[in-house]
Amino acid sequence: MMNSIVEQMNVFFNPRSVAVVGASRKVNKAGHVIFKNFVINKRRNVFKGELYPVNPKEEQILGFPCYPSLKKIPGEVDLAVIVVPARYVMETMREAAEKRVKAVVIVTAGFSEIGNRELEEEITEIAKKAGIRVLGPNCLGVYDSETGVDMLFLPETKVLTTGEEVVATPRPLPGSLGIVTQSGAFGVSALDYLTGRQMGVSKFVSFGNKCDVNEAEMLRYLLHDEKTRVILLYVEEIGNGREFLKVAKEVTKVKPIVALKSGRTTAGARAAASHTGAMAGSDQIYNAAFAQAGIIRAENMEEFFDIGRALALQPPAEGKNVAIVTDAGGPGILAVDECELRGLNVKKFSDELIQKFEQLKDEGKIPRFATNLNPVDLTGSVRSEMFEIAVKILFEASEVDGIIALGLHHAPELQGDFVDRIANVARNYRKPIVACDIGETEMALYVRSRFEKLGIPAYGSPEDAARSMHALVKYGEYLKKKNCFERYVDEFLKRRK
Amino acid sequence: MMNSIVEQMNVFFNPRSVAVVGASRKVNKAGHVIFKNFVINKRRNVFKGELYPVNPKEEQILGFPCYPSLKKIPGEVDLAVIVVPARYVMETMREAAEKRVKAVVIVTAGFSEIGNRELEEEITEIAKKAGIRVLGPNCLGVYDSETGVDMLFLPETKVLTTGEEVVATPRPLPGSLGIVTQSGAFGVSALDYLTGRQMGVSKFVSFGNKCDVNEAEMLRYLLHDEKTRVILLYVEEIGNGREFLKVAKEVTKVKPIVALKSGRTTAGARAAASHTGAMAGSDQIYNAAFAQAGIIRAENMEEFFDIGRALALQPPAEGKNVAIVTDAGGPGILAVDECELRGLNVKKFSDELIQKFEQLKDEGKIPRFATNLNPVDLTGSVRSEMFEIAVKILFEASEVDGIIALGLHHAPELQGDFVDRIANVARNYRKPIVACDIGETEMALYVRSRFEKLGIPAYGSPEDAARSMHALVKYGEYLKKKNCFERYVDEFLKRRK
Repeated sequence: MMNSIVEQMNVFFNPRSVAVVGASRKVNKAGHVIFKNFVINKRRNVFKGELYPVNPKEEQILGFPCYPSLKKIPGEVDLAVIVVPARYVMETMREAAEKRVKAVVIVTAGFSEIGNRELEEEITEIAKKAGIRVLGPNCLGVYDSETGVDMLFLPETKVLTTGEEVVATPRPLPGSLGIVTQSGAFGVSALDYLTGRQMGVSKFVSFGNKCDVNEAEMLRYLLHDEKTRVILLYVEEIGNGREFLKVAKEVTKVKPIVALKSGRTTAGARAAASHTGAMAGSDQIYNAAFAQAGIIRAENMEEFFDIGRALALQPPAEGKNVAIVTDAGGPGILAVDECELRGLNVKKFSDELIQKFEQLKDEGKIPRFATNLNPVDLTGSVRSEMFEIAVKILFEASEVDGIIALGLHHAPELQGDFVDRIANVARNYRKPIVACDIGETEMALYVRSRFEKLGIPAYGSPEDAARSMHALVKYGEYLKKKNCFERYVDEFLKRRK
Repeated sequence: MMNSIVEQMNVFFNPRSVAVVGASRKVNKAGHVIFKNFVINKRRNVFKGELYPVNPKEEQILGFPCYPSLKKIPGEVDLAVIVVPARYVMETMREAAEKRVKAVVIVTAGFSEIGNRELEEEITEIAKKAGIRVLGPNCLGVYDSETGVDMLFLPETKVLTTGEEVVATPRPLPGSLGIVTQSGAFGVSALDYLTGRQMGVSKFVSFGNKCDVNEAEMLRYLLHDEKTRVILLYVEEIGNGREFLKVAKEVTKVKPIVALKSGRTTAGARAAASHTGAMAGSDQIYNAAFAQAGIIRAENMEEFFDIGRALALQPPAEGKNVAIVTDAGGPGILAVDECELRGLNVKKFSDELIQKFEQLKDEGKIPRFATNLNPVDLTGSVRSEMFEIAVKILFEASEVDGIIALGLHHAPELQGDFVDRIANVARNYRKPIVACDIGETEMALYVRSRFEKLGIPAYGSPEDAARSMHALVKYGEYLKKKNCFERYVDEFLKRRK
């Protein structure tokens, strides 16, 4: 009897037993690194399944008895990770079928991406007949911090010519982002980026040539994965579009999908074809399909991560009226421009709201020279409590759907505590807020990381903050159209507590 | 007799004597910080001029005898920095006129930007009659690392709630970027950003309300400043457009100007009006004017800095045919897309060039599975010397005008030395190259900073690298149109040696 898709996909992330076919004693080999990852996680009691190295030339690897083939393994094998050269993969697949392996990950490259379509098709055929689900070939496989499944074979550290050992391929922190990527290299870059920015990952899966398992199935699995709250999807093509859209529509009602789709131009599509054999297809069609399914499309890599972070940390906006509060005029204008260019409104406030700020001026609570038409410019005379009071008024105002706080730390009397003050106000409201501080030296890095620690995504430029707010607005619009807005925000706030 | 504009502007950057009107003993006051900056630089023998604090309430400040007014200063005063409250500025200006001060910087705010146009006009009138050049009001003034002129009054460090003292407003390294900014807050953010990214600054000037000295004059001055190789210009409006364009056209023949112009949208223009009293004007007009004058316009803050760095480190491109070399397929496609979307060509290579790569494959010098149609994808099997050899072939190819090297460090056998190898090849050619490595942990930070140390601008995303290459192409096109390309590149390469 065929298991459900979710159960099938679960084997990749939570197998009761794993065989590494092509496990090696040579430390530089992928077959060594992958096997060692499992060994370490098993010793730490993170990976709880059985573990079998397969290699006809070895007696044992890292203390585990080695088997000459899959068939010779005494126990059942849920998942086989295949790292042998392409010419041996067929034989391995036949054995996997005989052994009634449930799923395989083919890390090995050298299939359709270099024109070797026939071999890939034959392998797929064997798998289909045997009911084996296949991830890959030409992929990085799976990383799951919770279950200890870790197929990343890239060296975690490297030694520089200076003799210094540095982190080269970091393992991500546990978190709420699910990474689904066609390109392995892009995937590993994503992990490096996210780790450096302290953004946690729930699950990571790299597809490669996608001879069998596809995005639609993975989305269905992640839909049911409690840990995953936002899905980041990098694709060069999407195969069975109809199924994909159907699942995506279900997913986006309860968790956002951010997509980075490459191969947009003719030259890019040509490059994609020789990368993963992808047929990129018309970019307009993808645009329309993504919009229809509520998938938020990022224009580029940085936006992809920036938006992901915003959606992970903040609720969507109920409308597109944005208020900007700043202590720096110029950057404030840059934020206004970017919002407006993207179709958000940075409207002049109502007289009633302006009056509230005027009153604060009269009471000496914000600088007399502050402007308050939107942006609210607290000027270089800002003090921490002024940001707090201004943000509170904006959260309370029904004419404001979302807030961009440009807290440039350089103002002489602004202290680091302004971040905590803003965050303390923000947690009482259902509206989203994003922050920005410009700079790359100590205080700026502190301000941004402190904001994020307190749940407010913070960016290094006003435009980055604005486009993240744009994503929160766009997703809010979609949820409202689908009548899911209130439920989503309720759930979001429940988790935030 | 009227001095030349260059001589007049030079007083702001290289005064023989400076009076700080409103100098203070109170450490949190701008009048203290500015005066102290000069004192420290004088003690270090960086600032070599005379120095006079002016404050009727003090006898001496930091060991310098204090004068009750400008008039009472015994020696000549080249430059007066005015930090007294707005209501005292008029009187100070009258004294400056009497004292025959050559130039003043009015740091003080509270003029046209809050509707106080009359006061600003009266002050401007006095200055005009007396032949005093005025920077400001409502500005941050000048910073020049060479002469020790430093009017940045924002605290260099701040103390966090944890008790830790951190750098808050860094002074930039000496370098080749001239920063010309209307917004002081944007300017100080720029310094923070540039310092953190190890980009050096030649001169910094903040205009504020621009009651007198304007961009055109400052551009003329920077045209003649040997230290300044690239000008970064942030503006909300440009007053005398005709003069500005005339000077800009002269400048861009010998050094690039990158402009970030805010107030692009109606809402942004409204915000600009209440910031520096700017009348932003039609964005299309600015676009056309900038293009006509060879000014490269950045779309946003990050692009502004990214482009500036590219132009500072690399020569412009002679045409728009870009070659991409990568070890990561996905990011390679992202770079292709961005290039093509911006109008660059990432053409399939000629048969002859493809043949060269095929030969390398046959010789085992690059991976057999490498693709070489453009991008050249050296795949995850890349080794350092493969990047070197591939880049050399691309530099030699007449069909290639510029190179984007995506050296993602994660590939197992790629060592840190690939950066040096690429840079060693690059320095023998007149073509531009830009690099990218994705990631935010140790190795990625090392790779990017090493690239830049060796003169190759390096970015954290493929798209950022592509748009920097686009700027190098655009500037090259302009120079060629003006018949200045060869001379510019000759000069550039002479300096690079």
